[in-house]
Amino acid sequence: MSNSETDKMPERLTKKSQNMSRWYTDVVRMAKLADYAPVRGCMVIMPYGYALWENIQALLDRRFKATGHVNASFPLLIPESFLKKEAEHVEGFAPEVAWVTEGGGEVLEERLAVRPTSEAIICHMYAKWIRSYRDLPVLINQWANIIRWEKVTRLFLRTTEFLWQEGHTAHATAAEAEEEALKMLEVYREFMENELAMPVIVGRKSESEKFAGATATYALEALMSDGKALQAGTTHDLGQNFAKAFEIKFLDKDETEKFVWQTSWGVSTRMVGGLVMTHGDDAGLIFPPRIAPVQLVVVPIWGDDTRELVGDAARGLADRLRTRFRVETDLRDEYRPGWKFNEHEMRGVPLRLEIGPKDIEKGQVVAVRRDTKEKLFIPQDNIETEVEGLLEKIQSSLYDKARLFLTENTFEVNTVDEMTTVMRTTRGFMSTHWCEDPVCEQAVKDATKATVRVLPFEAEQTTGKCVVCGKPGKLTYFAQAY
Amino acid sequence: MSNSETDKMPERLTKKSQNMSRWYTDVVRMAKLADYAPVRGCMVIMPYGYALWENIQALLDRRFKATGHVNASFPLLIPESFLKKEAEHVEGFAPEVAWVTEGGGEVLEERLAVRPTSEAIICHMYAKWIRSYRDLPVLINQWANIIRWEKVTRLFLRTTEFLWQEGHTAHATAAEAEEEALKMLEVYREFMENELAMPVIVGRKSESEKFAGATATYALEALMSDGKALQAGTTHDLGQNFAKAFEIKFLDKDETEKFVWQTSWGVSTRMVGGLVMTHGDDAGLIFPPRIAPVQLVVVPIWGDDTRELVGDAARGLADRLRTRFRVETDLRDEYRPGWKFNEHEMRGVPLRLEIGPKDIEKGQVVAVRRDTKEKLFIPQDNIETEVEGLLEKIQSSLYDKARLFLTENTFEVNTVDEMTTVMRTTRGFMSTHWCEDPVCEQAVKDATKATVRVLPFEAEQTTGKCVVCGKPGKLTYFAQAY
Repeated sequence: MSNSETDKMPERLTKKSQNMSRWYTDVVRMAKLADYAPVRGCMVIMPYGYALWENIQALLDRRFKATGHVNASFPLLIPESFLKKEAEHVEGFAPEVAWVTEGGGEVLEERLAVRPTSEAIICHMYAKWIRSYRDLPVLINQWANIIRWEKVTRLFLRTTEFLWQEGHTAHATAAEAEEEALKMLEVYREFMENELAMPVIVGRKSESEKFAGATATYALEALMSDGKALQAGTTHDLGQNFAKAFEIKFLDKDETEKFVWQTSWGVSTRMVGGLVMTHGDDAGLIFPPRIAPVQLVVVPIWGDDTRELVGDAARGLADRLRTRFRVETDLRDEYRPGWKFNEHEMRGVPLRLEIGPKDIEKGQVVAVRRDTKEKLFIPQDNIETEVEGLLEKIQSSLYDKARLFLTENTFEVNTVDEMTTVMRTTRGFMSTHWCEDPVCEQAVKDATKATVRVLPFEAEQTTGKCVVCGKPGKLTYFAQAY
Repeated sequence: MSNSETDKMPERLTKKSQNMSRWYTDVVRMAKLADYAPVRGCMVIMPYGYALWENIQALLDRRFKATGHVNASFPLLIPESFLKKEAEHVEGFAPEVAWVTEGGGEVLEERLAVRPTSEAIICHMYAKWIRSYRDLPVLINQWANIIRWEKVTRLFLRTTEFLWQEGHTAHATAAEAEEEALKMLEVYREFMENELAMPVIVGRKSESEKFAGATATYALEALMSDGKALQAGTTHDLGQNFAKAFEIKFLDKDETEKFVWQTSWGVSTRMVGGLVMTHGDDAGLIFPPRIAPVQLVVVPIWGDDTRELVGDAARGLADRLRTRFRVETDLRDEYRPGWKFNEHEMRGVPLRLEIGPKDIEKGQVVAVRRDTKEKLFIPQDNIETEVEGLLEKIQSSLYDKARLFLTENTFEVNTVDEMTTVMRTTRGFMSTHWCEDPVCEQAVKDATKATVRVLPFEAEQTTGKCVVCGKPGKLTYFAQAY
């Protein structure tokens, strides 16, 4: 909020092309997406960043509901004994748990975990609620906050507390659960590519990278401009692991009692980090118009004698556009236009409209695209259509650019030596074959710091020689990851 | 979800007129608004109840944004030292705090409170963010979960964890802060009366009932049908108490450094409890149409030979109405219409549309109002308008009924004896005068279990004799409270 603090911010921004890691931290704070909290590894999501999250929520929630899901709210605190019911699950999460041990002035008999994920508490409730095949499927999602005690944290990308949604479903058959896990993966993919303009590769995780307690984990992996992959979302086929641990049974049509088949799936505020790194440039953030908190900003170009005239025109223009777009008007007197341009570019506003006395005379507006900095003169008459068209162009060209980057930075490799070279130079995704033996996976990691990102679906049948041992292997994407 | 569990539910519902307390718990669980969680005092908000909360959120959020507020997200965990900075604040909340003492496998150096409210953490951030008068006002709201270790809990009304929104604002002057506290009180009143159809009395709290750390607390009090008051929301003028404790200073236009003036304000899932108790009847819930998760349900009245014809008509009708209303279609084969009627009445669906072969012939639909059980034949031609009109009628007549109840159950009293009589018989609000001495307040409480609900604004000037001591006093509402 502090103007005194931000006065010189645009000038201080580290160049993304020089040091992406520093650029990232700089831009997240300067654009007021988030700030460090006084609690280890926690952040404050500031209004501008939260508006982005609200847009993400609205667009995802609509998709969840369109695919038959409903929302609910389960408790934040989970008794330790519940977490322990599924053996792999507790092993995976116990080291990261924050424990409530005192409440209302007394030491608790049993420690309560601040949820690191909600399978345990939700499965307990499902065991109470589900009786018959008529109760299935259960298709519930929860928007919630999560705590995982992380050692190394970065704003949005890895924080002790984060916001997310977690879908938890129960089905009568294995096939239905598998179908759900894949359906939600596709919902995520379509959302990330169409709304966030962030292309992803999707597929199955290796055993070592799968969710604690799942039979299979599917993931979406985006490629950041430093060549590292970002896991942007996951869906899990839980099989009957939790159903057996929590005794979630139903009476089927054939009058026999069966365990349900389950899935869970989630994306988090981490996506905001992905969005920032995918599209930003040396001048700051670039938000795809569909998700941008502010889609366009109107900046008056005025002098002392034209302040009233131009101010009125800018306000009028903004009011007209506000019915269809998310609009900001920058009428601040204490800053010059150039300063404002820098600031709104740094904040990633996709489109800037400038209006001055000459533009008023000519019935036009100057439009400047954030992504290409292209300057256009557009007539005020049908400005809504023009703006709409420009925003669509920006959206698709951001996607195309990111898609091109992903394609150009995906390398076919056939030896560990080649992998080492790629990781030393460009980084990016490495497409190769792998035998699914954890020993070979570890060998790649030791040599290159790259891990299995996914085994893509289209190629589950495609076999080749394992990049490490030469035995038959499946098509696999490796990369260094956030 | 379980049909087997709910099969006989409508018949088991305790009558509200006989035992409101049992009716409340019955109906909340039978209608699947919420369920008990396996953690002491916590609840699960089930999909039907959560849909209600989503409607509440959407309607409130729109109002917050229209009054210039933005949303943000602050950390769940608050260091103990922060809570202690404002003396009254910690004294008020410490007994109810749940403490995180271990994280990531280690005992923490400082205990972290799971937020019982967020003033402490937010004020810490505001001290970082606010520098100049240009940064003011700060108008931030947060939608969040809260933990308070309550001794006695009831679904929605008082739970260890609850969902709420908390507004936290900072201003340059005392007058602006006071104006904000009163503005948000009015936003809440308008929302509760127009959307929840729940009339409230508003005013200032007594010293003993005000928020820990505030200079003044304003509240909205609704009257439940058992004659007890429910505090449905509060706004606080925090003065400079927190600003001084957290050193939130700004450089004013006159170049001097000043402490900001603050407010906070919140409503929670508790309102759902108020909504349930305000409108329900012996048959179950009654939801005002504007807030109802399902505004109307279409029930086919079919026989074996008309199943296809009537089913198609019901689906067609529902599809047509779904573009404007929140519609459910009950095409279940395993239940008879009468059973369905009972269930949807119990669930509080404001309007039921029945359609059978004769109705199809006549081009009509049978509409049944949940509140009056009135049956109407409406032509299919302009059904959208008819349904809209009926829903509006239901909304306003629910409000009128509740308003009448509040008026009829507000009693002018002049002695403690009269108060005792009222509390022994009808209960309700008692309008009287009070000198603002805590001793007299306590005397009333000891004799009647009634507490000061509010000192209404319209009568801050109206003086009379204190109901206890006879000294000059202000108009004051007393009631027993949830």
